[in-house]
Amino acid sequence: MTMNQNKKVPKIVIVGAGFAGLNVAKKLRKAKASITIIDKRNYHLFQPLLYQVAMAGLSPADIAYPIRSVLSGQKNINVVLGEVKNIEMDKKTIHGDFGKFEYDYLVVATGSEHSYFGQQDWEQHAPGLKTIEQATEIRRRVLSAYEKAEQETDIEKQKALLTFVVVGAGATGVELAGALCEIARFSFKKDFRNIDPSKSTVVLVEAGERVLPGYNVKSSIQAEKDLKKLGVKVMTSSRVNKVSEEGVVIGTDFLKASTVIWAAGVKPSALNKMLGPTDPQGRVFVEKDLSLKSHPEVFVAGDQIHFEQKGKALVGQAPVAMQQGLHIASNLLNLIKGKKTTKFSYFDKGQMATIGRSRAVVNIGKFSFHGFAAWLVWLVVHIYYLIGFKNKFFVMYQWIWSYATYKKGARLIVKKDWRQEPTASI
Amino acid sequence: MTMNQNKKVPKIVIVGAGFAGLNVAKKLRKAKASITIIDKRNYHLFQPLLYQVAMAGLSPADIAYPIRSVLSGQKNINVVLGEVKNIEMDKKTIHGDFGKFEYDYLVVATGSEHSYFGQQDWEQHAPGLKTIEQATEIRRRVLSAYEKAEQETDIEKQKALLTFVVVGAGATGVELAGALCEIARFSFKKDFRNIDPSKSTVVLVEAGERVLPGYNVKSSIQAEKDLKKLGVKVMTSSRVNKVSEEGVVIGTDFLKASTVIWAAGVKPSALNKMLGPTDPQGRVFVEKDLSLKSHPEVFVAGDQIHFEQKGKALVGQAPVAMQQGLHIASNLLNLIKGKKTTKFSYFDKGQMATIGRSRAVVNIGKFSFHGFAAWLVWLVVHIYYLIGFKNKFFVMYQWIWSYATYKKGARLIVKKDWRQEPTASI
Repeated sequence: MTMNQNKKVPKIVIVGAGFAGLNVAKKLRKAKASITIIDKRNYHLFQPLLYQVAMAGLSPADIAYPIRSVLSGQKNINVVLGEVKNIEMDKKTIHGDFGKFEYDYLVVATGSEHSYFGQQDWEQHAPGLKTIEQATEIRRRVLSAYEKAEQETDIEKQKALLTFVVVGAGATGVELAGALCEIARFSFKKDFRNIDPSKSTVVLVEAGERVLPGYNVKSSIQAEKDLKKLGVKVMTSSRVNKVSEEGVVIGTDFLKASTVIWAAGVKPSALNKMLGPTDPQGRVFVEKDLSLKSHPEVFVAGDQIHFEQKGKALVGQAPVAMQQGLHIASNLLNLIKGKKTTKFSYFDKGQMATIGRSRAVVNIGKFSFHGFAAWLVWLVVHIYYLIGFKNKFFVMYQWIWSYATYKKGARLIVKKDWRQEPTASI
Repeated sequence: MTMNQNKKVPKIVIVGAGFAGLNVAKKLRKAKASITIIDKRNYHLFQPLLYQVAMAGLSPADIAYPIRSVLSGQKNINVVLGEVKNIEMDKKTIHGDFGKFEYDYLVVATGSEHSYFGQQDWEQHAPGLKTIEQATEIRRRVLSAYEKAEQETDIEKQKALLTFVVVGAGATGVELAGALCEIARFSFKKDFRNIDPSKSTVVLVEAGERVLPGYNVKSSIQAEKDLKKLGVKVMTSSRVNKVSEEGVVIGTDFLKASTVIWAAGVKPSALNKMLGPTDPQGRVFVEKDLSLKSHPEVFVAGDQIHFEQKGKALVGQAPVAMQQGLHIASNLLNLIKGKKTTKFSYFDKGQMATIGRSRAVVNIGKFSFHGFAAWLVWLVVHIYYLIGFKNKFFVMYQWIWSYATYKKGARLIVKKDWRQEPTASI
């Protein structure tokens, strides 16, 4: 490969351009280094708003930003679209569909994907929500369910088509359930003739004792109250034991439902297996400075690491990944200058989740608040962290428009296949 | 099917919610009729801007509008997502995946699709541009070609990756070729390290003697001049004799190219076969009032009909379809009131095509103008005809943003498959 990697400056390879990886790259803007950033996608995805793509509120491009554009002015960096297949830490070399790269320092931040607790065949019936492709698949299923229900004459089948199950009541699950109710009650109100969308059933199933398990108890109670007010059927301490085309088995009860969305388990990136010892969830253990014990020139960040603070492992969240990315960058800057690395410490600015169209809960340590004010804070924070003026503006504008009209701005059932069918217009 | 078709009012079925069909439906707003509109898609597509989705400038939702939303306030209409498979004109019944509908009046406006002159296997190598799926496929190919070229070390292969061929120089072909050059020269300028996107080759191949064959000669000459100024290699009187994975054969010369886009032949909707006699291109003959001779209660409009005016058959264009839709609606209103139908006559307001970022040609009969002023007219007309305030605003805003920044707002390579690959992150 012809790379403009200067021999005299250290070679840094960053794998993954999510919140962690992209922040490493951006903070190394002025570093005297030859940097390569590799991602499977050509864009950075703002995952916290992905549920709005799934719920037909936003277009994929509104929350995705081309990695090349973000870094186009940064001369020390080379963007590679590709997938890493192997890491040879002893040879300081990574391999993939792009060929191979040698490195002096390596940053791995490839995140996590959905875990179906060993039941991989559940996936086809219950898409998760980590990628744009999954979000548009969920959008396709939800919108198609309403279209099919409108044409269905069998009452039982119609009921199944209008039953939506969200598995897992973390922030994503709560936000999905709220948005599904919002669509049913408001967005689709006047659009159908044979069904009443407001009669849809939205079920949120959580194995733990309360919704938003990572939040304080007060926030959880408030969120559950708000969800119920919206019309969500909240089932805590309930385990999904089977997912099939017909529906889900919750505990021992079968619930007929044609749309199931998976917002439950995640598992760390499979690259972890090449990095070192992991915890039972597969997250790799890192040192206090986020490097690997066996290879201090390799740093790992984001959802895929086990990093304890105050005796508890940090959870996989955008703010954690961002702060870790920035910290790794400053450690790399130290190392380039011959200085020592420093310990990472997460500064918790809080966490938040929206519930429907004008409510949210905000949780900062033991403190929490909710309602309209929390929702406004949620809006401002999300707009602030979106990359690019155009995207900030677009998302904000769509929110105002949707809020005023109750409509959804990206209500498209897009097919997977682009080729003309032989019977295309028969 | 339980339809709210009142027995006392006439039943009107409209097949297709394109420019013709949707205009029929909207104009029948106050008609005392029970109307059903059927489309394969859940949205109306503004096809004249589809090339901008393919060129990563707009998102699909910016130019698509849910049919249910357009017609949600119209109580006399029922929207059905489905595909018509059979028309029994003698029984006044249509059949499809939705079941069947009886009608008193039928409107068929299902448009056209791409024709590969009997070489259907060319399609996989040269997607056309009629649907959102095709537009995102073209976007995927164009963006991926640049990504692969950036990683390619073989100069010959790199050149093929940076060669883009557009087959057919009607308005769509001209607009695509111009936009491809704009991307190469401006949008991607600073984004790559190993390739110079401005060295890309864009070839526009036209079998006829001049580009924009439907326009007056002056417009064609001006358009060709503008295209060449942008850097497009224009090949008129040139026939594509083969399309393969490696490239195209133009005349007898083979041109290596990894991206080929089909903007050449179209063929009318396959439903025409059930409607009556057609011309050699497959367009069904209609009476002066746009009805079928054999079945005066059946009206047909848009790309799929042969309708002569001033001795020439009208071409398949949005304005023609829109005017025909409105005319059919007024004929239906007449028939409901027991009056006679009237003859259709197309009022030609002109036609226009953009060339790159600030040029266009406008052609009104023998009169024509071009350049920046023409481009502004093009902008205003297209914004005006877009449905929905949100979409008008979004498209306009994206154009201003793109014009100012030279960037493309929807530069996403989205995959076709949504499921997690077993090796997703290895």
